[in-house]
Amino acid sequence: MSEDFNQWYTEIVQLADLADYSPVKGTMVIKPYGYAIWENIQSYLDKRFKETGHKNAYFPMFIPKSFIEKEAEHVEGFSPELATVTHAGGKELEEPLIVRPTSETIINHMFAKWISSHRDLPMLINQWSNVVRWEMRTRLFLRTSEFLWQEGHTAHATIDEAKEEALQMLDIYEEFAKQAAAVSVIKGTKSDIEKFAGATTTYSIEAMMNDMKALQAGTSHELGQNFSKAFDITFSDENNELQHPYQTSWGVSTRLVGMIIMAHGDDKGLKLPPKLAPHQIVIVPIIPNDKDKDSVMKVVNLLNDSLSEFRVIIDDRSEVSPGFKFNEWEQKGVPLRVEVGPKDIEKNTILVSRRDDESKNSYPMDDVQNTIKTLLDEIQDNLYKNSENTLKENTTHVESFSELIEVLNSKKGFVSCFWKENKEDELKIKEETSATLRCYPLENTDSEKAVNSDSENGNFAIFSKAY
Amino acid sequence: MSEDFNQWYTEIVQLADLADYSPVKGTMVIKPYGYAIWENIQSYLDKRFKETGHKNAYFPMFIPKSFIEKEAEHVEGFSPELATVTHAGGKELEEPLIVRPTSETIINHMFAKWISSHRDLPMLINQWSNVVRWEMRTRLFLRTSEFLWQEGHTAHATIDEAKEEALQMLDIYEEFAKQAAAVSVIKGTKSDIEKFAGATTTYSIEAMMNDMKALQAGTSHELGQNFSKAFDITFSDENNELQHPYQTSWGVSTRLVGMIIMAHGDDKGLKLPPKLAPHQIVIVPIIPNDKDKDSVMKVVNLLNDSLSEFRVIIDDRSEVSPGFKFNEWEQKGVPLRVEVGPKDIEKNTILVSRRDDESKNSYPMDDVQNTIKTLLDEIQDNLYKNSENTLKENTTHVESFSELIEVLNSKKGFVSCFWKENKEDELKIKEETSATLRCYPLENTDSEKAVNSDSENGNFAIFSKAY
Repeated sequence: MSEDFNQWYTEIVQLADLADYSPVKGTMVIKPYGYAIWENIQSYLDKRFKETGHKNAYFPMFIPKSFIEKEAEHVEGFSPELATVTHAGGKELEEPLIVRPTSETIINHMFAKWISSHRDLPMLINQWSNVVRWEMRTRLFLRTSEFLWQEGHTAHATIDEAKEEALQMLDIYEEFAKQAAAVSVIKGTKSDIEKFAGATTTYSIEAMMNDMKALQAGTSHELGQNFSKAFDITFSDENNELQHPYQTSWGVSTRLVGMIIMAHGDDKGLKLPPKLAPHQIVIVPIIPNDKDKDSVMKVVNLLNDSLSEFRVIIDDRSEVSPGFKFNEWEQKGVPLRVEVGPKDIEKNTILVSRRDDESKNSYPMDDVQNTIKTLLDEIQDNLYKNSENTLKENTTHVESFSELIEVLNSKKGFVSCFWKENKEDELKIKEETSATLRCYPLENTDSEKAVNSDSENGNFAIFSKAY
Repeated sequence: MSEDFNQWYTEIVQLADLADYSPVKGTMVIKPYGYAIWENIQSYLDKRFKETGHKNAYFPMFIPKSFIEKEAEHVEGFSPELATVTHAGGKELEEPLIVRPTSETIINHMFAKWISSHRDLPMLINQWSNVVRWEMRTRLFLRTSEFLWQEGHTAHATIDEAKEEALQMLDIYEEFAKQAAAVSVIKGTKSDIEKFAGATTTYSIEAMMNDMKALQAGTSHELGQNFSKAFDITFSDENNELQHPYQTSWGVSTRLVGMIIMAHGDDKGLKLPPKLAPHQIVIVPIIPNDKDKDSVMKVVNLLNDSLSEFRVIIDDRSEVSPGFKFNEWEQKGVPLRVEVGPKDIEKNTILVSRRDDESKNSYPMDDVQNTIKTLLDEIQDNLYKNSENTLKENTTHVESFSELIEVLNSKKGFVSCFWKENKEDELKIKEETSATLRCYPLENTDSEKAVNSDSENGNFAIFSKAY
């Protein structure tokens, strides 16, 4: 990792059994270990979506081409990435079907049918599904032609409610990043260039990876009335007047798995946050002699029983050595390794190794549940603190346009400045540094002299190279 | 329902807010209430799959055309139903991509890469996904061009292990049907005509709907070495010799929602089994006068709190009458309705109506958790018993070929007979009655004189019209 981050990423995804390349260019196979992380992500978020009143539904993945074309910015944004079904059931189709790159159009077509009164609002829908955005350069989890995601779609009576909803979902994404993925993120507003095709405002959470590049980890959009007008969604308000609702959409994808890999990993492999790790603990029995086998396995099984509240795996393979197992589980990022051998049994202790800080300590067997719980909590916290420090320590503030370019070209990390929204200047930065305006952070509302203006003030902004 | 079953089905699916037609011919939208049933189905089955050692993974939905063509029977079976992507990313593709109708081919391509030793076996994978089989005649949940399902794919060292796996998964489907969906099913083997394209043996569970037609509710296939040979999957056995593994695949789909509707519904609407119902209980506050509102709602909220182990919805809409609500929730099949009004509060009771048998009784408020639990269990049992009785009472045994045709043409329901496997005879039955050989039930292994042979014995078989 410390030598060649990209190569490390590509290798570790495969070595840790997270994913594999598929024979179809641009697509990937998510292997069981990688999929289990995604299931834990889903489980956390799905619960939060439901707690905030959203309901899951499912819409067809084939979208009539004419639908995509209804919202002008939307079709322009997605056209280069679309996959098209032209033949089905042995015939050429009259109208080609687009494989959804996102479902705004088909969902809003249905909303037009379902919404008629203010009593139908807010309409709060989420979908877990696959989507397709054609890619030639594949990067497992980060950039693939097909990926898995969730997309929320909502309709509200007022613009304020829609804004509140978009920000609420952004908060949930931030909470997930912090509390489950142990990744520090910056919540912010996207510039006009970077916003979603069809949105009035796009919010995102931006995380810093271990190579100091940015990763956009989730987005939440205010759509205004763009889609409700394009799809003629109307409701009669309390005065019986017809109105177009205000809408939002928001999503995160399997790219979050990529974030977890790149935010926490090291030269040895993954470091998974306990809250999302498929296995929180691996127990490795140490059996120096065959005669010890029964007694060790007996203790291992008792230990496993007493840790039933955690996700435990016992690695009792006989064809590989303990050292081989240690390496493998370190590579796979299991937060805690517990060794149990005859000496440990004699002392009534277990030997516990932490993946995060590589510390190794003996603990009494008697209080094992509390010990494990405490250690897992500490690891979760420690990973988050490291992520927070990485972000802080690798963010530079600059005061001028030339300094902005210079720092982006010479130094890894985020660069902050005050910026006057300006498309031309932003493209110039991209051209000269390949960095982009990641966001205008919500937490900093100061307005000071902009680096790209002689006299005008700008808003606090973050620039960085990004995935 | 009693007058026109098909019409009833089409209407109730929409009236109960389960699903809607989509603008793309042949596809459907699964609305939140229908999707919540599917989530409960998923949750039950996913747990059982994991308990039996299977792991979830995700494979690309686009399959190279050449893959589909590798297994001769497989391509023949699916060709008429395929949807093809010819253009993507603004270009015509060199090789068209098929949208998966099922994933045997892509998964087995990957298995060939992942399996090399007997230590890699058994490989036990499941996928939750969408699939596409082009349909012109849509029936919501039962026959749509795109549907949601799970598909298990496994590889084993021996033919016996593969058979055991296929039967184990069939048992899990049966257990689900009985214990969760409250539907009586027959486990059996498919005839050669009806088996899966590429399988050596197909097992299914067959259920009887309330119009006495059959519905194939789940299938489990032994694939033999058909795919492992076509995709060159090999493993070195314990003697270090290269072998092709034996395989299985098995699946159930959103058609199970259709099964639940048609197995339990009546003229008033759905009857959902408590184990799968999105709402097990609806509480309807009865507020004769505005002055009662606070006191009634206080009790309703307390009641709701004390029923937190159940899935409860409070219908406190003020714009519709209690009678309107009663109809709506009956239509939606909620197992229990609880009314709370000033009179009930005075007597410290609740008024509970069962959807299954339409009984209505008062119960003391004090023991409400046990009361509700008992009632829900009774409803679950009662629905299953009704399903079992329907199946028993509408199955006729026949002794001759002419009688088989006559009964299939004159009477609703299943017809059993002893049948000598014979493609020509089976097609003749289909032509003359539109019924098909549903299965050779596993529980009846008798062999008696076949209705389609002058002298030879046959196996016990079930014929029926089917969805």
